[in-house]
Amino acid sequence: MSLPLGYAYAATYAGIRQVEKDDLALIVSALPAHAAAVFTQNRVQAAPVRLGRKHLVASKGQVGAILINAGNANCATRTGDAVALGSCKAAAKLLRLPVNQVLPSSTGVIGVELDAAKITNALPRLAAGLSGERFEDAAHAIMTTDLVPKTAFAEVKFRRGTVRVAGMTKGSGMIQPLMATTLGYVMTDAQIPVTQLRAMLKRGAEASYNRISVDGDTSTNDTLVLLANGACGVKPDAKELVKLEAAITGVMQSLAQQIVRDGEGAKKFVTITVTGAPDAAGAARIARGIANSPLVKTAIAGSDPNWGRVLSAAGNAGVAFDPAKTDVIMQGVAVCKGGLAAPFSEEELKQKLDAADCEIRVAIRGKGKGEARFWTCDLTEGYIRINGSYRT
Amino acid sequence: MSLPLGYAYAATYAGIRQVEKDDLALIVSALPAHAAAVFTQNRVQAAPVRLGRKHLVASKGQVGAILINAGNANCATRTGDAVALGSCKAAAKLLRLPVNQVLPSSTGVIGVELDAAKITNALPRLAAGLSGERFEDAAHAIMTTDLVPKTAFAEVKFRRGTVRVAGMTKGSGMIQPLMATTLGYVMTDAQIPVTQLRAMLKRGAEASYNRISVDGDTSTNDTLVLLANGACGVKPDAKELVKLEAAITGVMQSLAQQIVRDGEGAKKFVTITVTGAPDAAGAARIARGIANSPLVKTAIAGSDPNWGRVLSAAGNAGVAFDPAKTDVIMQGVAVCKGGLAAPFSEEELKQKLDAADCEIRVAIRGKGKGEARFWTCDLTEGYIRINGSYRT
Repeated sequence: MSLPLGYAYAATYAGIRQVEKDDLALIVSALPAHAAAVFTQNRVQAAPVRLGRKHLVASKGQVGAILINAGNANCATRTGDAVALGSCKAAAKLLRLPVNQVLPSSTGVIGVELDAAKITNALPRLAAGLSGERFEDAAHAIMTTDLVPKTAFAEVKFRRGTVRVAGMTKGSGMIQPLMATTLGYVMTDAQIPVTQLRAMLKRGAEASYNRISVDGDTSTNDTLVLLANGACGVKPDAKELVKLEAAITGVMQSLAQQIVRDGEGAKKFVTITVTGAPDAAGAARIARGIANSPLVKTAIAGSDPNWGRVLSAAGNAGVAFDPAKTDVIMQGVAVCKGGLAAPFSEEELKQKLDAADCEIRVAIRGKGKGEARFWTCDLTEGYIRINGSYRT
Repeated sequence: MSLPLGYAYAATYAGIRQVEKDDLALIVSALPAHAAAVFTQNRVQAAPVRLGRKHLVASKGQVGAILINAGNANCATRTGDAVALGSCKAAAKLLRLPVNQVLPSSTGVIGVELDAAKITNALPRLAAGLSGERFEDAAHAIMTTDLVPKTAFAEVKFRRGTVRVAGMTKGSGMIQPLMATTLGYVMTDAQIPVTQLRAMLKRGAEASYNRISVDGDTSTNDTLVLLANGACGVKPDAKELVKLEAAITGVMQSLAQQIVRDGEGAKKFVTITVTGAPDAAGAARIARGIANSPLVKTAIAGSDPNWGRVLSAAGNAGVAFDPAKTDVIMQGVAVCKGGLAAPFSEEELKQKLDAADCEIRVAIRGKGKGEARFWTCDLTEGYIRINGSYRT
């Protein structure tokens, strides 16, 4: 699959992280792109998040470049605002863009001053390396505790031409995005008005990034950006936009799921489906409650079909439902029917739960039509090992 | 310290748990005691919780006996209601009490049928063993994954005599009581009207059991009971009641903290104090958010003064506060001032964090007067090991 037209990427090592591994990435759109973004809901917000919001307002949703560093979150630091603005200014000058068309992103440790000189010194060689082919390099550079880079692609053929979508993301811990994610960038070369782009992003995030959790912690730097630069010359009509939105949402779901698969210490990917809740929001709350229960997550790690923990976690979600009308299905096996134990072979199900992909389904029988799907991972000793010594 | 007058205790092995270790306990008050109880807020409630509520209403808050089994939660089982009622009836007959003066409690695995015969067969020898001295035996019998029994005592001297308080509790995992706890029983020999007893229990639980968390999961069987049988002949006046309530709350706090110290896999006991929040409820929400953050809990396990995670967890609690006016103090060392890194010796603080007791203080400077204290433990590989194979 080809990349969207009219974007260039670059990555370099600026010396921000201690290991010599690219830590600075640049995404540039040849034509000013329409942009929509969602950011973290955490009360504590990093300087680049605050500046990014301002720039999007000032530029009326036009973005020419995104400058991303890993290894330092530029959050809760004395010089944070100056560093974020200084980096954007330096990039804007090099790329001949208005400064408010540069979006800054940072990810990494909180509370350590970020040295602006490291970024400004690296910028010339970063810009010199820009190329339409270096998408994967940029996806590598934004990684922190990620074990693998995370990218996703889509292509939609319309009468007037082909529209392409490409996305990259990072994230492995401190994952429970709310209205946003860790860092995610999705590019398309279709032409889409800003207002429609915003609505598409909001719905897409709701069905993807807002439906995952690794550890229930929401980061201070979460950012998800959707760019549309129109470089392929196609301006989708209303019907085509629906098709394109499905492709974009698909890319976002793939990216979000890759984060969960790479969850810190995770060995298993868990899909949680809730049906029959009073409404979709209630279903999502129940699913999130199950996904965030350490007892459910450790049971999955141990291949233990401990449906009592699933039912108990559902009951703690603050949503009204009748346990006596609730079934729990694990790996397709009904383990609980109407709130009671159903007969099943524990030995066989244990084996099925050894799979890398597990499924928990909670079906509430009754009048409710609320459904939700949520993705999480198991909780293993690896998570503890990684997070007992992240900074040192 | 002596035990409250007029109570007797017993424990035996009824064969409910597989290991041969007492699993059935009985607490009897010689005089019918005034009783108040709070129960789990989980939507999924065990049969003994439902029956206990009914009995308290029917008896107008009179309790003669509490029958407790460990090893099986009697929750989400076909025969749950019948087993709970049958056990109470058998105990009531033996003890010559109205059935609604017997409170049932169960703790253990969810979703496995509890064999009523095991309890009714064991009851005669259980009742035969009743003694004012077997308080510790009962405290042992109610344990599940607990490593140690948990008891606390108080004595208050009034003009007309001495009032005594004794409490026992269990719990180690699935701990985030809300309006209740895992299982807890507090007895006093003072004479206290039921309405006042209820208010005392509510306030006491709010300051003790509702301020702890091991893993953020709320059990289906949480029950905290306060009994006052008047056996010491003292009916405290209004002023004395305040003093007695402080003693009772102290016993509850000690019990609650013992649960956290015995938290599954826990190596450290963590006290979280929040000051300067908009109100007390907001302070408690922030404290709970910090206490439930896996990233904070693993940092404490690793003796890592990672205050960025503390600040981020506070920011996720859904409470309005200004991060730029927020200090974080760990083990008495200011690590973050006004939302920014404060200078401190990382080496020295790491050593201080190796202590078994850790303290995290979040001080928001401003007009807010909301304060809260919360207790939690660190998150270690031991928690994962215990919960990856609980049932097998």
